[in-house]
Amino acid sequence: MSEAKYDIAAIGNAIVDVMAPCEDALIEELDLVRGGMTLIDAEGAERLYAAMGPAKEISGGSAANTLAGLAALGSKCAFIGQVAEDQLGAVFAHDIRAGGIHFDTPPRPGQPPTARCLIFVTPDGQRTMNTFLGASQFLPPEVLDFDLIADARVLYLEGYMWDPEQPRAAMRKAIDAARAAGREVALTLSDPFVISRHGDDFRELLASGMLDILFANHVELAAMTGTDDLDEGLAKLAPQVKTLVVTRSEKGAVALENGERAEVAAEPVAKVVDTTGAGDLFAAGFLYGHVRGENLERRLRLGGIAAAEVISHFGARPEADLKALVSERVG
Amino acid sequence: MSEAKYDIAAIGNAIVDVMAPCEDALIEELDLVRGGMTLIDAEGAERLYAAMGPAKEISGGSAANTLAGLAALGSKCAFIGQVAEDQLGAVFAHDIRAGGIHFDTPPRPGQPPTARCLIFVTPDGQRTMNTFLGASQFLPPEVLDFDLIADARVLYLEGYMWDPEQPRAAMRKAIDAARAAGREVALTLSDPFVISRHGDDFRELLASGMLDILFANHVELAAMTGTDDLDEGLAKLAPQVKTLVVTRSEKGAVALENGERAEVAAEPVAKVVDTTGAGDLFAAGFLYGHVRGENLERRLRLGGIAAAEVISHFGARPEADLKALVSERVG
Repeated sequence: MSEAKYDIAAIGNAIVDVMAPCEDALIEELDLVRGGMTLIDAEGAERLYAAMGPAKEISGGSAANTLAGLAALGSKCAFIGQVAEDQLGAVFAHDIRAGGIHFDTPPRPGQPPTARCLIFVTPDGQRTMNTFLGASQFLPPEVLDFDLIADARVLYLEGYMWDPEQPRAAMRKAIDAARAAGREVALTLSDPFVISRHGDDFRELLASGMLDILFANHVELAAMTGTDDLDEGLAKLAPQVKTLVVTRSEKGAVALENGERAEVAAEPVAKVVDTTGAGDLFAAGFLYGHVRGENLERRLRLGGIAAAEVISHFGARPEADLKALVSERVG
Repeated sequence: MSEAKYDIAAIGNAIVDVMAPCEDALIEELDLVRGGMTLIDAEGAERLYAAMGPAKEISGGSAANTLAGLAALGSKCAFIGQVAEDQLGAVFAHDIRAGGIHFDTPPRPGQPPTARCLIFVTPDGQRTMNTFLGASQFLPPEVLDFDLIADARVLYLEGYMWDPEQPRAAMRKAIDAARAAGREVALTLSDPFVISRHGDDFRELLASGMLDILFANHVELAAMTGTDDLDEGLAKLAPQVKTLVVTRSEKGAVALENGERAEVAAEPVAKVVDTTGAGDLFAAGFLYGHVRGENLERRLRLGGIAAAEVISHFGARPEADLKALVSERVG
């Protein structure tokens, strides 16, 4: 790859997480999709917030979490995403910049407010996410900084953002800009519901060779390929993308790259407190190794280490010194 | 005490804490009062926030934290405090109500915004607080619900709130209402700076028998009495208040009541993560025992148990099941 100002530029939802522990019974009572991500409107957000216990506000957003991990590891990152001109927008912008990440998408005046994700964390550490997209879904293609995208070795795209119209259009333009500059394009599939609505788009992007790196978990792999069999699913997708990374929760992760296959077990975790951000941080560790030219197995291990850190505490962004953790575990 | 709808009604700052871990060097660099509380204006808040790392927003406010502890223990509580009509105000209101606390002070439209406290937590767990009072300082006497105050066995007042003019006026009226209804009045001195500015007011309240319970830490006791000697300080204040409670950080706590003296060691804590809220939760445990008619030593132990819980994690409100902790430790 040629010289670049940034290692990774990412486009993603600019979201503040509103997180509270809850008992399993509440998930049933509120009729929530346990372990999943559901889009909610303003009214739904009000209803769920009223039912939620005392909460904490912690900046989130899938791709933004990934960048927080990358920046903590030492990568140079830039984020593109839409907040509103309000207090939660200021919180999001502060937190991402305070993490050393370049962020200059102008806040959007007026309604709707900054996106928030109401996250109910059950005693087993599982998170049930309910997202009010607010301003985040109105990222217009016009605010894209194409110079910035051309100046990043990898463009990283959040699958969730493929759902709303404006960000989808912005991402298509961003892919073109990255490819024109000879950069790599990575996509994370984010959630089965995105695949159920936009699987054809993703399959077309893959078939036309527009994606270099694809992140999926085992459920998303099944949704993309129509098979529950891991090896069969991998065999179907691998020929269409240079690097395919599939995370398997407590079963670890597997990757295929140019015919090579690597696999790792999950990193040990003393206690799973909150799984929010596990996939995001896995991508962070993997991409950190990727831009440094590390081998495939080592990239998977780096992903596992970052994911293990984030699930050992409340919140989807790293708290411990990831750099130190990595050098302790893999030298 | 006669029958009452609430065990405790409290008047305090309605604040959202913005908390981030930081290295000791940053405290020096920013010229902050390590371990103390400093009032800052909007400009100062912006300057400090820009220098702060990625943060979490967690509802705070001294008396509100105390009520959160009391409610978690099972007491019936009501809070009076002023938020603005903005997102942080909605967060504060949600969290206090979600804790089961009655709160109906109407939000204040327009500027300034809801109060926030920028808290830098050093690796030793010490917190350095910088408070932008915002809307909180404009609690007008007119919004007091005197029926509510008359219907609470104890009126609990936050010393910090004595500093701004409007809440001070409101608190004076609240004291009169509580006394007229035959209720007890408790005050926490909050911080030496409050005493340096309003010590004479407090001494006058004590001298005129307006206070039944006084909470202070050892530094505040010294500021009130002009002596560093604990016993001398206790001897000076005790005759003026029915119940005097003095917390001494890792040295435990001591109380005097009608000539009786009780003392307890600090409860064991595996690791002090963040001391924010230690005094607030001590008051919670003590008052919980107080309204249940527990003896003096047991009230001190309840305070110590609640304080130990809150300093073992990030944030000034209880996370563990306080009721279970109490029954485990003191039956």
